[in-house]
Amino acid sequence: MGSSPPDSPIRVGVLLFPGHEPLDWVAPVNIWGAVKDADGRPRIEMLYIAENAGPVTSVTGTVSVIASYSFADLPPPAASPQHSPSANGRPATPPSPPSHQQLHWLLVPGGIGTRREAANPALLEYIRAWAAPSSGLQLCMSVCTGAALLAAAGALDGRRATSNKRAFDWVKSVNPRVDWVRSARWVRDGNFVTSSGVSAGADMAVHVLKEVLGAEVAAKAAQYAEYIPATDADKDPFADEAFLPAV
Amino acid sequence: MGSSPPDSPIRVGVLLFPGHEPLDWVAPVNIWGAVKDADGRPRIEMLYIAENAGPVTSVTGTVSVIASYSFADLPPPAASPQHSPSANGRPATPPSPPSHQQLHWLLVPGGIGTRREAANPALLEYIRAWAAPSSGLQLCMSVCTGAALLAAAGALDGRRATSNKRAFDWVKSVNPRVDWVRSARWVRDGNFVTSSGVSAGADMAVHVLKEVLGAEVAAKAAQYAEYIPATDADKDPFADEAFLPAV
Repeated sequence: MGSSPPDSPIRVGVLLFPGHEPLDWVAPVNIWGAVKDADGRPRIEMLYIAENAGPVTSVTGTVSVIASYSFADLPPPAASPQHSPSANGRPATPPSPPSHQQLHWLLVPGGIGTRREAANPALLEYIRAWAAPSSGLQLCMSVCTGAALLAAAGALDGRRATSNKRAFDWVKSVNPRVDWVRSARWVRDGNFVTSSGVSAGADMAVHVLKEVLGAEVAAKAAQYAEYIPATDADKDPFADEAFLPAV
Repeated sequence: MGSSPPDSPIRVGVLLFPGHEPLDWVAPVNIWGAVKDADGRPRIEMLYIAENAGPVTSVTGTVSVIASYSFADLPPPAASPQHSPSANGRPATPPSPPSHQQLHWLLVPGGIGTRREAANPALLEYIRAWAAPSSGLQLCMSVCTGAALLAAAGALDGRRATSNKRAFDWVKSVNPRVDWVRSARWVRDGNFVTSSGVSAGADMAVHVLKEVLGAEVAAKAAQYAEYIPATDADKDPFADEAFLPAV
């Protein structure tokens, strides 16, 4: 994981699916979106991707967000040539394929829709292809039950990872070959960073920013959001199911 | 401000406009949306409203959310009869007007789009009508620079209110008849609750839940989001512009 060249923004794919939890990605996107260069240009650019471009419902179904890219519009590097069809058996000259855009980070939110998407071959294949070391992806991240999708894609096999505490047993059941860490605000293992439930995504987002662009950039992004982040990856009061925060 | 009858959900109008900051409303909506009755039905229901129904761009313009209701679809009680046109000068029999839906709460987010909306008569009139005591609205809330829209509508005249700290001078300039409180996480004055920048909306959302439905409901909603809320309305480290949170 290294810094991006100064003139080339970090491109983050935000993976949307029906029944996603908006807060899981909106909080990280707010933190990352506040990072600008000296000329006020965004240093981190978000690309909203879903199996099909267009409106994607959220957990409640009452609000939809619009994905700009379908999986076909933004193919992973490895999958791209394999999926170019040859109409007549001869080597195909791809008819103006979408120019490949390299993602640097992938962010997978959670939400009740993960229960269905964990068995969606198209989505899992898309994640698998980007999570492959050859894809050029620098960071593969999840928030909340988004970890179940990374796990179902096999991307976390043999790795340490965490997820939402209330759905933890289900997430574990999706793939027991993952070294599931119950008590953690977020877990970093190689290029994979998985965070705990919902709000933990913002803390992971600040932490990742600190690692990639430095503490000052991260602190200013948190300041911009008037947010005091949790900074200890291992401190997780919600791992105790009886814990209720003071209100 | 009282409790809603048990069988009737609290209806929250979420006001969207081009250039809103999604986190401002997504965090409160996540907190409130977690509140269910014994049968698992939502006790708080969100209605997404914009001047025109359909896609509404956000701060970056790269992600849009879909408003289900236009201002005309969900008219404030007082404004509804006034705006029924009479085609020929005779008292009009309104041609199947949209059945009136009573909002209980209104949530106004901030974002760079507030700079333009603060001079949008249609939006200001919509806010003004719902903010009027006769509208039946129980709580009128803003997050971040959303307070500038309430102020521009005259809804905060003579009231105490707060807003985002980095945009504070601009917000104050919108309406000096408001008693602007610089150092506050959120401010309650009568039925109006204004919160500080972005993340403060989640804290206001938990606090309002506690006031209306009790501490246990509020604590469980925060637990659901794995969120530790700020609970002191008067504690605001970001009021010091030099303050940078530890990362």
